[in-house]
Amino acid sequence: MSHPMFEKHRKTLDDACKAIRERGYWSAYPEVPSGKIYGESAKDDGLAGFQARLNKPFAIEGQPGEVGRVGHEVSPYGPALGVTYPKSDLDTLLRAAQGALSGWREAGIEARVGVCLEILHRLNKRSFELANAVMHTTGQGFMMAFQAGGPHAQDRGLEAVAYAYDEMMRTPEKATWRKQVGKEEFVTLEKRYRIMPRGVALTIGCSTFPTWNGYPGIFASLATGNPVVVKPHPGAILPLAISVEIARDVLKESGFDPNVITLLADSLDAPITKDVAIRPEIRVIDYTGGSEFGNWLEKTATQAIVLTEKAGVNTMILDSCDDLRAVTGNLAFSLCLYSGQMCTTPQNIFIPKDGMKVGGETKSFDEIAGAIVKAVDWMLSDPRRATEVLGAIQNDRTVLRIGQAAGEGAEILRESAKIANEAFPEARVHTPLILKTDASRKELFMREMFGPISYIIATDNTDQSVRLAAEASRNCGAITAGIYSTNEATLNRAVEALAEAGAATSCNLSGQIFVNQAAAFSDFHVSSGNPAGNATLCDSAFVSRRFSVVQSRVCV
Amino acid sequence: MSHPMFEKHRKTLDDACKAIRERGYWSAYPEVPSGKIYGESAKDDGLAGFQARLNKPFAIEGQPGEVGRVGHEVSPYGPALGVTYPKSDLDTLLRAAQGALSGWREAGIEARVGVCLEILHRLNKRSFELANAVMHTTGQGFMMAFQAGGPHAQDRGLEAVAYAYDEMMRTPEKATWRKQVGKEEFVTLEKRYRIMPRGVALTIGCSTFPTWNGYPGIFASLATGNPVVVKPHPGAILPLAISVEIARDVLKESGFDPNVITLLADSLDAPITKDVAIRPEIRVIDYTGGSEFGNWLEKTATQAIVLTEKAGVNTMILDSCDDLRAVTGNLAFSLCLYSGQMCTTPQNIFIPKDGMKVGGETKSFDEIAGAIVKAVDWMLSDPRRATEVLGAIQNDRTVLRIGQAAGEGAEILRESAKIANEAFPEARVHTPLILKTDASRKELFMREMFGPISYIIATDNTDQSVRLAAEASRNCGAITAGIYSTNEATLNRAVEALAEAGAATSCNLSGQIFVNQAAAFSDFHVSSGNPAGNATLCDSAFVSRRFSVVQSRVCV
Repeated sequence: MSHPMFEKHRKTLDDACKAIRERGYWSAYPEVPSGKIYGESAKDDGLAGFQARLNKPFAIEGQPGEVGRVGHEVSPYGPALGVTYPKSDLDTLLRAAQGALSGWREAGIEARVGVCLEILHRLNKRSFELANAVMHTTGQGFMMAFQAGGPHAQDRGLEAVAYAYDEMMRTPEKATWRKQVGKEEFVTLEKRYRIMPRGVALTIGCSTFPTWNGYPGIFASLATGNPVVVKPHPGAILPLAISVEIARDVLKESGFDPNVITLLADSLDAPITKDVAIRPEIRVIDYTGGSEFGNWLEKTATQAIVLTEKAGVNTMILDSCDDLRAVTGNLAFSLCLYSGQMCTTPQNIFIPKDGMKVGGETKSFDEIAGAIVKAVDWMLSDPRRATEVLGAIQNDRTVLRIGQAAGEGAEILRESAKIANEAFPEARVHTPLILKTDASRKELFMREMFGPISYIIATDNTDQSVRLAAEASRNCGAITAGIYSTNEATLNRAVEALAEAGAATSCNLSGQIFVNQAAAFSDFHVSSGNPAGNATLCDSAFVSRRFSVVQSRVCV
Repeated sequence: MSHPMFEKHRKTLDDACKAIRERGYWSAYPEVPSGKIYGESAKDDGLAGFQARLNKPFAIEGQPGEVGRVGHEVSPYGPALGVTYPKSDLDTLLRAAQGALSGWREAGIEARVGVCLEILHRLNKRSFELANAVMHTTGQGFMMAFQAGGPHAQDRGLEAVAYAYDEMMRTPEKATWRKQVGKEEFVTLEKRYRIMPRGVALTIGCSTFPTWNGYPGIFASLATGNPVVVKPHPGAILPLAISVEIARDVLKESGFDPNVITLLADSLDAPITKDVAIRPEIRVIDYTGGSEFGNWLEKTATQAIVLTEKAGVNTMILDSCDDLRAVTGNLAFSLCLYSGQMCTTPQNIFIPKDGMKVGGETKSFDEIAGAIVKAVDWMLSDPRRATEVLGAIQNDRTVLRIGQAAGEGAEILRESAKIANEAFPEARVHTPLILKTDASRKELFMREMFGPISYIIATDNTDQSVRLAAEASRNCGAITAGIYSTNEATLNRAVEALAEAGAATSCNLSGQIFVNQAAAFSDFHVSSGNPAGNATLCDSAFVSRRFSVVQSRVCV
């Protein structure tokens, strides 16, 4: 039961399956936005493709249940997108999704996986268009929107397909069971094992990384036979709408019901996520977003398997280093990148109050804190670099939060400022706010303050830094942690304590690698070991519960 | 980091890992209770060992928090066991379990798996003692108590260890990630992936198959590093208490904290399961038992991963056959075995009201129903065979349910009768009740009637039989289904419909293989695809969520 699309992409799949086992560096989709790779006109075509979407209704051809139009996206760079999407009658849409299930299931593993791989391949070809869509919904700078929204997101999708394929192949389709039950007597059963998808899956998208966080769940569900209803964040619909359109095209071309994937858009003033999440038809939910709603889903949508990536408090521990400039330069980039709007950005930076060793010499707390501020200042000293690295603030509430944090009495080491973006004069750009406090002020730093807000916290010593980092991770959740130390034992102790608290820890990063980056096929994103989420992108638990194996046996 | 116990049992593990991939017949522990295999004195020693337990306190040496004694087990064969177990202070016990976690985690995969394999090996040597304990708590006949309570349960435990090992080995301990970031520039990260157990696990035992249903969760949790608190059903403590004792001995001998596994006993009049299940320390729960409590756990114990095997309505569809005697003989054994107290026993038998083809000839509904009754009568015609096959009724409420079912107006085809067991005059033995009804009386058969109660249901035709069987499975849950048909297309249609409803279907069973039997390493027990349970014994989803992989990376 092979399938031409499976054969076409078999090598990519094989390489991906090898990569998830070995976990070295590997990528299927080039991250360099180069004309040599993507075609000389790709950049212009992508921009034109994006612009052609603006101020128009976005049609999802053949998707039933349209009862109106919805869509109020405004670019964090200024202009309203003016795109409207189908507003759907939920009953009709879910009926269509359910109706698509049996044909998709019966297609078999190779056809489903082949179609998924072809969708990813086409998404890759459209990376420039997707980059513009991601940029003008999330506020990411163009380069980041291209990489994280395009090839890196596609890699994450492929990783989910590889895990799903690997998982489905673990049980044979058939087996012969022959047992001796007497001297010369045998019982023989021919057994068959069927992959039965769980049902209709719902992907609830986020506003900051709609594709990177959305693709894993979407592709894991598709590969395992579950039709997917894609419910984007009202502020970042376009990247997922384009993705759904591309996926439906591939499905149609290969003779499947395009309603295997559907778009369910809504608006901030008339949200429908709660309504759809508790529908009995919905059997799998992938969610990325705030903790409050994630916790509600986990407790309430008990008819479904709920996989969440929520929020957390990431920490950085400074103990000692050889080259302070390398440390502060690396950290400054992490703090500035996309204005701290990554679920992996450090928020709390712990430094011993009596300072730390730099090379042979002890530098005071204030010297270190000052060096961090200076490194951020340098990073933003060139306006073009500043706006490319910072991007724009996705959500107005994040701007308000900066003001709130600045007014809570912590010493301000670096003021946040609204700065201009030459290309987009209306862009919502605010530089990082850096505050100073000490270990006693838990009410300030033991909570998530999403956005370009960080606390440099004076601790008694590194042991206390580690304890507080682990406590934040255990109580508030954490996806990442980082530490700089020249002492092997200190590094190990910190890594062990943070592993127990479920935070992935990066040690002594310098150069072109940052604590907030997670690479598909190698890094596990979210450990599921603390409140930051109950699922990991990607591991076998992320895919295995999306289907059951139902057996039959015939006496022969 | 190998371990002598791992090396000792490595071949068993390798064979088990191969078996779960190939799913043909394989077993590690001989099911024949023969002196040649288990030692000439094994049977007598086992009985003596069991008898030495009676009317005494059962000590769990070194388990902290004992604040009294509890235990009121009464054999379904008559005598009270008179065994008491520690009544534990929950705070102390959970603290001890938590205290055992880090050492057990740090032991590493091979040490943990080696210890599990040695425990299983020793359980196997004690199969006769365990058989007596299972027999006199569950009411199973001796042969079944030996097989299902001993070697088959051990096989299920081994299967869980194999899945856990396989799962933990899917991610390497270490990887080097090297990415080109410039013309001649590379970033290299040394990554480490740590298996982090979820936390303290709770196994909630059942009264009918304490070891067979308990071992998979216990061993899956142990192998993945989670200390296990074993909370047996108050009516069937002894088999799990002996198992815990053996496990603690092996742990102690190999230098581990024996509180990696603890016994938490309670009584029917002072149940503690709800209290312990919602404790924040409990992060994994394995449950086998009634649906009501299972549903409560799934909805309430949201701090834990909850894996359930609940109840259901299993069905048998009769469409056509060549040899009626082979069919009714096979079915009669399934109905009689352990008095229908298996979660896999058929309850509803659907037959077309106009009868069915047997060989060339059509036999009427009443002829077929009569043949089933006759086959049951024959099975029970020899008193020794009758009592060995039927065993005894575990719970008084099951006896009441027989009376209730007989009094609800359905035509009685076969009366249930209390019969004598020569060896145990006080034994609670009741023969199967068989009722006749038709497809319209859903209030009778669309509900679980646990015990020796079955309905022979007249349907319009086999299509309706299949529809009703699938409906029962979808709405009430079902673990098994069976069909007899000489028509290939009918078989396929039924199997497909039942697979969609999540029921494992057996076709045309005859001879020494029965619908209520599930073989480790080959049969998946519970599909998780209907309300009969949300977990499967065993598959990778059964083990993968018991740990998370937390990574660290160091820049080099």
